Amino acid sequence: MIQASIITIGDELLIGQVIDTNSAWMAQELNKIGVWMKRRIAVGDTWTEIWNVLDEESSGAEIILITGGLGPTADDITKPLLCEYFGGKLIVDDGALANVKNIFQNILKRPMIERNLKQAEVPDVCTVIQNRRGTAPGMWFEKNGRIFVSMPGVPNEMKGMMTNDVLPALQKRFVLPSIVHKTLLVAGIGESFLAEHINAFETALPHHIKLAYLPNYGMLRLRLTATGSNEKILNDELTIQFNDLKNLVSEWMVIDEDVTIQEAIGKMLKQKNQTIGTAESCTGGYIAHLITSIAGSSDYFKGSIVSYSNEIKENVLHVNEETLSSNGAVSEETVKQMVQGALITLNTDYAIATSGIMGPGGGSEAKPVGTVWIAVGNREKIIALKFWFRFDRMRNIELTATNALNMFRKFISGKHDSGN
Amino acid sequence: MIQASIITIGDELLIGQVIDTNSAWMAQELNKIGVWMKRRIAVGDTWTEIWNVLDEESSGAEIILITGGLGPTADDITKPLLCEYFGGKLIVDDGALANVKNIFQNILKRPMIERNLKQAEVPDVCTVIQNRRGTAPGMWFEKNGRIFVSMPGVPNEMKGMMTNDVLPALQKRFVLPSIVHKTLLVAGIGESFLAEHINAFETALPHHIKLAYLPNYGMLRLRLTATGSNEKILNDELTIQFNDLKNLVSEWMVIDEDVTIQEAIGKMLKQKNQTIGTAESCTGGYIAHLITSIAGSSDYFKGSIVSYSNEIKENVLHVNEETLSSNGAVSEETVKQMVQGALITLNTDYAIATSGIMGPGGGSEAKPVGTVWIAVGNREKIIALKFWFRFDRMRNIELTATNALNMFRKFISGKHDSGN
Repeated sequence: MIQASIITIGDELLIGQVIDTNSAWMAQELNKIGVWMKRRIAVGDTWTEIWNVLDEESSGAEIILITGGLGPTADDITKPLLCEYFGGKLIVDDGALANVKNIFQNILKRPMIERNLKQAEVPDVCTVIQNRRGTAPGMWFEKNGRIFVSMPGVPNEMKGMMTNDVLPALQKRFVLPSIVHKTLLVAGIGESFLAEHINAFETALPHHIKLAYLPNYGMLRLRLTATGSNEKILNDELTIQFNDLKNLVSEWMVIDEDVTIQEAIGKMLKQKNQTIGTAESCTGGYIAHLITSIAGSSDYFKGSIVSYSNEIKENVLHVNEETLSSNGAVSEETVKQMVQGALITLNTDYAIATSGIMGPGGGSEAKPVGTVWIAVGNREKIIALKFWFRFDRMRNIELTATNALNMFRKFISGKHDSGN
Repeated sequence: MIQASIITIGDELLIGQVIDTNSAWMAQELNKIGVWMKRRIAVGDTWTEIWNVLDEESSGAEIILITGGLGPTADDITKPLLCEYFGGKLIVDDGALANVKNIFQNILKRPMIERNLKQAEVPDVCTVIQNRRGTAPGMWFEKNGRIFVSMPGVPNEMKGMMTNDVLPALQKRFVLPSIVHKTLLVAGIGESFLAEHINAFETALPHHIKLAYLPNYGMLRLRLTATGSNEKILNDELTIQFNDLKNLVSEWMVIDEDVTIQEAIGKMLKQKNQTIGTAESCTGGYIAHLITSIAGSSDYFKGSIVSYSNEIKENVLHVNEETLSSNGAVSEETVKQMVQGALITLNTDYAIATSGIMGPGGGSEAKPVGTVWIAVGNREKIIALKFWFRFDRMRNIELTATNALNMFRKFISGKHDSGN
């Protein structure tokens, strides 16, 4: 098994001022081509730490991918370190220089300074990976049979290099096994109950097929992973196991693909050639954002009324003033009227509405923080359910959105009576 | 200097199916109490890997914090491993058992199964950290003068344990230095130009004060960090340096605090006792979501019209049909009319409007993918600017939102003529 470690360099990542999303993406891509992940490590901008981590990781992994520490500013020490580590000296790379000049002259249309030119310098012991999306070149080193690749930390620059250069080169260089995943999404059941329910299935799995539980905002993804040498055989084996698993969890299954619930809903709406809109109070546009983060969502999503103030609930969604004053904004009647209003104002086939108290303030004894009403419906029928989420503001917003989308999925599938 | 390593356990994190946000939060909290971060490491659910990483990290760091691998399902091997690593045996902890029972009986209102009861088992060589938000207890171990703390991977459970138990206990246990940060946010200038501009300042900084560049969606945060023994002296020193830095970058400074642009705008609106709404096409509710992710935003945010379809631009925002057919939805005229419509429909003092092509489809020669028009304004004046973002869909949405919020910040500060 060929193993890889990913090293992320930079104080800002180490001390958590910036969330690292690069290494998750890189790990997924490596996994797809059959490279086994050994470790992911974040270190600061410290010479000895970086040096030690290069030594340690190359003692266990064949592939060491490094991101970060290549920018033009003074807190970047990675390039001189790599130069010394691999015993080279810095030289100007013509391709990288032409690239830096081109970016400044033709894209940024700004004058270049000395600091930018320095980005074209690379150790003379590396193979340069040209950066088609930025100024810092990537560098491919080999030492004692190990591959080290250093890339900039800017996500789209790193992704371009990985996709165009690094992954194809690794596939040429190593004989890699096949890794096949199949994932399904379930909702409305606790992790431990599910584990009990499928215990016999899990125990009977062959050694090269593994089951993982991936909790995700009140939902759970179940992933089967098979490792072997023949992709076709693996796929056939995995399909049989996956079908058994699907039968076992059919009661709670949202979809039998590794997609988000907003993607699953998008597919259903497209198939039916129908449209949806949202009327959002407590989610503040987050459901609309989730739906529109999917390319092509304009085929089925028409828009949203984010009615944060009651004035907008009344004026744009036509919620009854009487309802708001006697039942309150967080009530079954209000969210049902919000759905009705959205169906008319947005002129859609379906609508989703939310109203709740996300915290930390705004709670009362009768309606504590985390109380949420969600309604989904069409012109014939509207379903409303009450929830109580007990997390922080952001997590409450996310849980409200996920549950609203799941209620809508059940509604459009005709499963709406079971609730959640 | 007391150093800490954070170890995250779980295949799902290692192979990137789940993004790790825990360790960033933990690193920030450690940093605040003066613990220096050595490394952050993700390893899979593999016995030898976890064992080795415990050995390696405890050779360099005094504090080793571990999250994940404590759930009720079969892919969790952390607890038996810790038991063997520290030479104990598993016993039932009465406090943890009472907690599991209470959660099932009084909160989840579900029957308990054997698997849940097992969560109350802990090695007899640890100090138990009670989990007030979930079923898995935390465990505090000591070995050869090193502290090891194992916590569940569920973010709010881990955060509760860190805040209530782990951080106070670490502060009692070690004599920790003071670490003071001051951060400001700049926009509209490249990293290398800024670095050149403040080069003399950076070079002249005393050894115990460090400057970091933290790029963030077209903006840049500059962070000064001082380390020493006396917090008051550090604060005084840092204030002087920070004021110098503020003067140097005043032209591009958004705010002199470590806050997001939506927080900065919220403060301005609250101070003026004025309101805002958004009319969003290409951002699909994301700006409304950013604004409403701030607690208390209902004081100044009234709502949003997400007009993904032209029908809603016409019917709810009163954009001229003629304008849409002759200039198109992605045009200066359309976004200006969207601002006008939002001011009326939402009845706010200010409005922000966006319309663009986020990709990957929908581009043309005249309006390639990434073309965006943004307008901000009030009843007296509306400013519109054209942008061209060249990233993936999600990043284009984020950049549009950040730039729209920054345009609005300039507008409300009376700096609107400079553009971006």
